[in-house]
Amino acid sequence: MQLYSHFRSTASFRVRIALALKGLSYQTVAVDLLRGDGEHNTSAFEAINPQRMLPVLVTDDGQRITQSIAICEYLEERYPTRPLLPREANERAYVRSLMAALASDIHPLHSLRVPRFLGSRFALDGEARRTWVQHWIREGLGAIEVTLQRADRAGRYCLGQAPTLADAFLVPQFVSALNNGVQADSFQRVARIARDCLDDPAFAAALPQNQPDAA
Amino acid sequence: MQLYSHFRSTASFRVRIALALKGLSYQTVAVDLLRGDGEHNTSAFEAINPQRMLPVLVTDDGQRITQSIAICEYLEERYPTRPLLPREANERAYVRSLMAALASDIHPLHSLRVPRFLGSRFALDGEARRTWVQHWIREGLGAIEVTLQRADRAGRYCLGQAPTLADAFLVPQFVSALNNGVQADSFQRVARIARDCLDDPAFAAALPQNQPDAA
Repeated sequence: MQLYSHFRSTASFRVRIALALKGLSYQTVAVDLLRGDGEHNTSAFEAINPQRMLPVLVTDDGQRITQSIAICEYLEERYPTRPLLPREANERAYVRSLMAALASDIHPLHSLRVPRFLGSRFALDGEARRTWVQHWIREGLGAIEVTLQRADRAGRYCLGQAPTLADAFLVPQFVSALNNGVQADSFQRVARIARDCLDDPAFAAALPQNQPDAA
Repeated sequence: MQLYSHFRSTASFRVRIALALKGLSYQTVAVDLLRGDGEHNTSAFEAINPQRMLPVLVTDDGQRITQSIAICEYLEERYPTRPLLPREANERAYVRSLMAALASDIHPLHSLRVPRFLGSRFALDGEARRTWVQHWIREGLGAIEVTLQRADRAGRYCLGQAPTLADAFLVPQFVSALNNGVQADSFQRVARIARDCLDDPAFAAALPQNQPDAA
């Protein structure tokens, strides 16, 4: 398999964790989000993904799959040996709710293109753009924190004692929060789980600084 | 089952379509997003969903499920009789990619809370907020249009001749685009599929104006 990825891409990070937890090998195809206007905005990459977003998985039979949720569901169905979704229907729904909240309601609001547009179209300065990014991270992770606390289903991981896709989606958002200057104090459960995850070599291997394209 | 819903909620609309396509009956619990600061922002609703978002499905065994993607995957597993995901792995991935692109990269950028924050925190006026909303709808549906055209897998529906969850997610975003003043001319394949879907009584029953809480 090949993964179009950038070491700093939060959505690519999710898929790298899922691949590592399943012990699947793949080749990284680096797409530099930060070079010029971004390699993802070139016509060459647009031919691969019209959304101009990472990640893209190329499967062993040559199919291209976009969107981290779709890629992870595919990996779960195609490579079920080390499962990353629980078996029981209500638990599966709980894990998928966390995944979707992390994938839909935090990162898309502060990914690179959004503060860029706030600057180019509405002349918001760096400080205002930083306020924007931190606001949505705090809103989003705050809701995840309350959800995890009330559900009280966490063990070492979001659900019990084995990693699931919820953890694969939580850790990158936690790392992104820290990188964007959001303190973890208000998200104690999130922070504890994320740090425990990062003690696992599969999660650590997926960290931005451990990617072949890291500066 | 019960569905916490608002007739104008795009994400609730997706789930209403899935329920209708599967022929499942449910009770609507109306949450008025537009009353005062929004009923979803009350402490009573926050106790039901810390994200303060719609929809929430209450299952027959009393479990609450949040997030439209997680709810639809649950319905698909629990009520498989009229399937809304194809069987073949690559086709499932294609449908889920469309679902995720529609759920993550368009609507969260323009849902009610976002233009409100642009106004309250950065003093963007109504015209600027309208520019914002239309920009992300055009960006997002533009990419979906190209994806549908290039994949060339559509029949009457996004994938062949039977409705899938991709259609359940496409139609609400198309209706939302029109409601937000975005012309459909640039999204001909999207518009054709959405209009064909709306000829199906299950899709039409889920329309905002056909809900018990519609004004």
